Amino acid sequence: MLDSLFRPKSVAVIGASTKDLSIGNRIVKNLIDFGFKGSIYPISLKADEILGVQAYKSILDVPGDVDVVHMVIRSKFVPQAIDDCGEKGVKFVILNGGGFAEVGPEGAAIQEDCLSRAKTHGIRILGPNCQGIINTDPDVRAYCNFTFTKPDPGSISIVALSGGVAEAIHQAFAEMGIGTRMYASNGNACDVTIPEILRYYGDDQGTRVIVLYVEGLRDPETFLKVAREVAAKKPILAMKAGRTEEGAKAAASHTGGLAKEDLATDLIFEKTGILSFTDEEELCQAAVAFSSQPIPKGNRVGMITNTGGPAVIATDVLINAGLIIPPLSEKAKAVLREKLFPEASVGNPIDVLATAGAEQFRAAIDIVMEEDQIDSVYLNFVTPFFVDAESIAREIVEVNKERRKPIICNLMTDKRQWVGTVETLKQGGVPYYSFPSTAAKVLTALTKYSEIRVRDIGQVRRFDDVDREKAEYVLRKVKEAGRELLSATDVYGILDAYGIPAADWRIAADAAEAVEAAAEIDFPVVVKADAETIVHKSDVAGVVVDLWDSDSVQAVVEEMEERLEVKDLKFLIQKYLSGGKEVIIGAKAEEGLGHLVMFGIGGIYVEIMKDVIFKLTPVTKVEAQEMISSLRAAPLLEGVRGEKGIHQEGIIELIQRVSQLVSDWPTIQELDLNPIIAYKDKVFVVDARISVSNSYSGER
Amino acid sequence: MLDSLFRPKSVAVIGASTKDLSIGNRIVKNLIDFGFKGSIYPISLKADEILGVQAYKSILDVPGDVDVVHMVIRSKFVPQAIDDCGEKGVKFVILNGGGFAEVGPEGAAIQEDCLSRAKTHGIRILGPNCQGIINTDPDVRAYCNFTFTKPDPGSISIVALSGGVAEAIHQAFAEMGIGTRMYASNGNACDVTIPEILRYYGDDQGTRVIVLYVEGLRDPETFLKVAREVAAKKPILAMKAGRTEEGAKAAASHTGGLAKEDLATDLIFEKTGILSFTDEEELCQAAVAFSSQPIPKGNRVGMITNTGGPAVIATDVLINAGLIIPPLSEKAKAVLREKLFPEASVGNPIDVLATAGAEQFRAAIDIVMEEDQIDSVYLNFVTPFFVDAESIAREIVEVNKERRKPIICNLMTDKRQWVGTVETLKQGGVPYYSFPSTAAKVLTALTKYSEIRVRDIGQVRRFDDVDREKAEYVLRKVKEAGRELLSATDVYGILDAYGIPAADWRIAADAAEAVEAAAEIDFPVVVKADAETIVHKSDVAGVVVDLWDSDSVQAVVEEMEERLEVKDLKFLIQKYLSGGKEVIIGAKAEEGLGHLVMFGIGGIYVEIMKDVIFKLTPVTKVEAQEMISSLRAAPLLEGVRGEKGIHQEGIIELIQRVSQLVSDWPTIQELDLNPIIAYKDKVFVVDARISVSNSYSGER
Repeated sequence: MLDSLFRPKSVAVIGASTKDLSIGNRIVKNLIDFGFKGSIYPISLKADEILGVQAYKSILDVPGDVDVVHMVIRSKFVPQAIDDCGEKGVKFVILNGGGFAEVGPEGAAIQEDCLSRAKTHGIRILGPNCQGIINTDPDVRAYCNFTFTKPDPGSISIVALSGGVAEAIHQAFAEMGIGTRMYASNGNACDVTIPEILRYYGDDQGTRVIVLYVEGLRDPETFLKVAREVAAKKPILAMKAGRTEEGAKAAASHTGGLAKEDLATDLIFEKTGILSFTDEEELCQAAVAFSSQPIPKGNRVGMITNTGGPAVIATDVLINAGLIIPPLSEKAKAVLREKLFPEASVGNPIDVLATAGAEQFRAAIDIVMEEDQIDSVYLNFVTPFFVDAESIAREIVEVNKERRKPIICNLMTDKRQWVGTVETLKQGGVPYYSFPSTAAKVLTALTKYSEIRVRDIGQVRRFDDVDREKAEYVLRKVKEAGRELLSATDVYGILDAYGIPAADWRIAADAAEAVEAAAEIDFPVVVKADAETIVHKSDVAGVVVDLWDSDSVQAVVEEMEERLEVKDLKFLIQKYLSGGKEVIIGAKAEEGLGHLVMFGIGGIYVEIMKDVIFKLTPVTKVEAQEMISSLRAAPLLEGVRGEKGIHQEGIIELIQRVSQLVSDWPTIQELDLNPIIAYKDKVFVVDARISVSNSYSGER
Repeated sequence: MLDSLFRPKSVAVIGASTKDLSIGNRIVKNLIDFGFKGSIYPISLKADEILGVQAYKSILDVPGDVDVVHMVIRSKFVPQAIDDCGEKGVKFVILNGGGFAEVGPEGAAIQEDCLSRAKTHGIRILGPNCQGIINTDPDVRAYCNFTFTKPDPGSISIVALSGGVAEAIHQAFAEMGIGTRMYASNGNACDVTIPEILRYYGDDQGTRVIVLYVEGLRDPETFLKVAREVAAKKPILAMKAGRTEEGAKAAASHTGGLAKEDLATDLIFEKTGILSFTDEEELCQAAVAFSSQPIPKGNRVGMITNTGGPAVIATDVLINAGLIIPPLSEKAKAVLREKLFPEASVGNPIDVLATAGAEQFRAAIDIVMEEDQIDSVYLNFVTPFFVDAESIAREIVEVNKERRKPIICNLMTDKRQWVGTVETLKQGGVPYYSFPSTAAKVLTALTKYSEIRVRDIGQVRRFDDVDREKAEYVLRKVKEAGRELLSATDVYGILDAYGIPAADWRIAADAAEAVEAAAEIDFPVVVKADAETIVHKSDVAGVVVDLWDSDSVQAVVEEMEERLEVKDLKFLIQKYLSGGKEVIIGAKAEEGLGHLVMFGIGGIYVEIMKDVIFKLTPVTKVEAQEMISSLRAAPLLEGVRGEKGIHQEGIIELIQRVSQLVSDWPTIQELDLNPIIAYKDKVFVVDARISVSNSYSGER
């Protein structure tokens, strides 16, 4: 539990200083200035008193208990100081200074040393190389941080590894006049992690919205678990940066090459219900609304405006984002015709006219609140000098108090002149923005979250007809042989074990067996050379398709035997399927996260159009359906231009079986079912590759 | 010329009032408060004096000349007042009030009356139903407007029909502390148009940047012409709203259905070199940088940062937008190693560290300014309390004065505390923003403009081998017959006249002629039923392909003759082409703009993937090349997966010939060459449709 970190009763500063522009001085000053409710203990060898607070020579001299200790001393002195803290019974150490893992191996060793000593003492570390925390709770007022933005109390909590970005976000809220609840930036994060802080914010009653910034996930498995729990309780608005770095690190394999570096993070966000942003400013603007407004029940907006153009812009943004602006009921229109000015427009948007006063605005808002087919309210509010804008603002605030539907306001005014109007909205908790697009994007974010929140991806289906032992036998054999790429026999054996339908096949050692196999399978058949050393069969002309008689099969096999100088050469004889549509299912292991599963349509759709969808395992039926329906080329699978559609249920089941297969066997690094031939009523894998990791250590 | 409107020497207000919250009072007050350098003449039947200024009973009583007259009287009194103004020799009338075309036919009649009287008197009208103009030129100080935002002098000029949006933009600049030059909102725009105002801003020495907001273009032809001239002189940053309205107004035809409502405006922006935005806030943020910074020579950014995370975010944004962050030269690195702190990172980004002072920042900026491979400077500037941020700001300003390369600054600070730093940057004309993404987007806009500016779309090629007389003969015949859809003979005749290659074809009246034609063309052939009444041949089974002998041709023709009960039934016998790739070229008339020309790849690429590119006529070779290379599926045309590429030069020429054809004959409403079979070395149209307007009145 991080209670003692975020709600400390006492804070000591080892390395406290009388020097004005030093961090050791600033932390003491920040605690004092912010009105910290607990005890402050500056620790200094030189000074008896710092900023009027009694100082001590050693942490051991401090009279009372100490919850949190800041260390603002050189890294090499930190391990000893941690031992002192251990003796004192300190609960948390915040290592503000640098000189640890971020500077190289020597620093990393010190960091390691600190961590192991802290563990011995039961001390938790925040940092090193970090800003620290802030808690604005009036009962706490902890500013354990050397930065300079002094927030008002609020309900947004911020967490980030990067102090720079966290601070920029923090400043943005301060400038918007929006308070924050808690703040944490944990730098090198050698001990206290982002998921721990997330969970703490999740449990904190005072936190309504969590803002998260990450550049990468250290422990995606834990993050996934915690984020899912927390996001179920309150909105997490997140941004991931570092999206273009190492974008060229494309893996050699098909699936790997298509999976972008940051895809896994996006998928975790999606799977856990985190609302993802790519722009910090938009994130901050949205967070303000999340902190004060209820979540809309749906995507239907009522728009009220007292000026034309901005309504056009807002409509564009909302409609483009998939929101709708439904017509008003006849009853509502009748009421508005009575209460608004004669020239007012009583559609949706409702144009109350620039001359509208508080009474007209109120009538329009009341109507929109009452209309069943409307979930949220978008207000364009320009302040002509000839109306009493402040009284309009008061009416908006009055309705906003009821928290029936979210209200987002585009306030177009000169904030230096219309001070009372601005202040009324701010105090009344009505989020207001300076541009129609901005306000509309915020409403879009609220609405998107409402969709994420209700989205039910369903349960994971476990197929109990699978033959785990058979799969295990194959994989153990592969491991024992020290191989990474599975032979055709292995691959089709595993597919068979997991109920994944493949075109009928046999393995033949020579031409005679091949002819026999072909007869069993029935013509036409395809002959594929199969040997461990052949990775890409088509590169060595090891595939011949559409063979219609025994003579052809015999000739092909004999020719390959002669030409391909490969030991252990065998032949895969397989039913040759034609017609149907080619689709691809792939999977790729993702450290700490299970696997990414991919679906796409064969040929140019994957290779040229990059039209593929990924999901994280385990993939549910709902997710598998989404994988199909989210493709740009999805209509092709439903049958267009006279072509038949494909057996979507079959593909959905196949995706789920692949998900179960790779989940059961984490040793599987990559799996490519490419192509799968999908007909109207059935699907067959006709080519497949599986590679495993040699460091495989058993089933999960 | 609009000089008397934007630089009036005297302004009268008909309908001036002593009533505080009236528009007739406010305009007089605004003129006074803003320090108008000319004479102010309130015209009022009731008052002798308004706000201390002598009032007159009639405009005819005013002693001096009057350049501009505001009319703040009911619309029905306006026509007479315009006559009075005519007698007085007034140059411009600003009609602030409503009650004109926007309220219906009666108002429209009044507007028409006003306009015709004004024309008689040589008076120009701004509005009606408009805000008016502002000019901050210290020699003028004209606030001929009833709004409330009082701008400082600056170099950004704003023009918009919508007063609401113009005002929101105006307020944004004011809030950012950025001055503006001129402002105009012309409401119903019955006389003075957006293009006229654009041209005036283009000629105005004090205007460096033009901000334009439109919801639609009244006279796209003039707009195109003027925008091209003005954009060549100075940046025009524009936004078009109303993008989703009537999106369902999809035309019945293929090309028409794909062309979105607002596509033409986007294409005009592209063709004229206007920088297009979809978000007002981003537009305003960019305008600030355009007003003070030079345009970068290229897309290579030097990034300087004193904090890590924000550099990651900025890198993401810049790289995603196609900018590059090139390595520094060895020489530069050596200098930086000497001048920066030892732990600083001397790559690009240059991390000068949070402890960097003015000296370190200056060293980094100087290096980036000198590096030949860098075109612009992105600064992340956080203000730790332990550095002298103001002196850093002074160094930035110092370098900025030289205007060698644009500098964009992400300033992360508490603006309420770091007042001096903020003020230094502002006074020094360094554009600063509160978020890394925001600053990076602004730099992206500057860079994009630099690319637009140097983009040479080349000259229009006129093919002189075309047979205009033949085309004219066909079109005249069609017109005389009152037809809108051309027969196959007509269509192929026109294609032939314009040197557009089609698969060899003949028209046959009966089976005997068909057999003869097929023999001439050589098998295989396709037989298509051809008659005026058959719009979609395939709907009536009027197309049979791949016929290899005379008997088949005869049988097919006889079967169709019997089955299709159509008068004037003829048969198009055409060479049957197979293999090759199907592509589509289309054209659609666009009122006042010539035609939209479309290119796409046949089949699902157009219909399902919506992968098509449009350009406005006349299409140059460069534009035709862009049409091919901009397709998502472009690699297909270069040959992938063992397929051959297509004859791109042939397609490029074909697009240009189509462009010339439809430009020569504006009567052509729609043209569809679908499909065109493209081989490696040649291209052939194998099916084509052309429709014309019956209101055709001759060649252009």
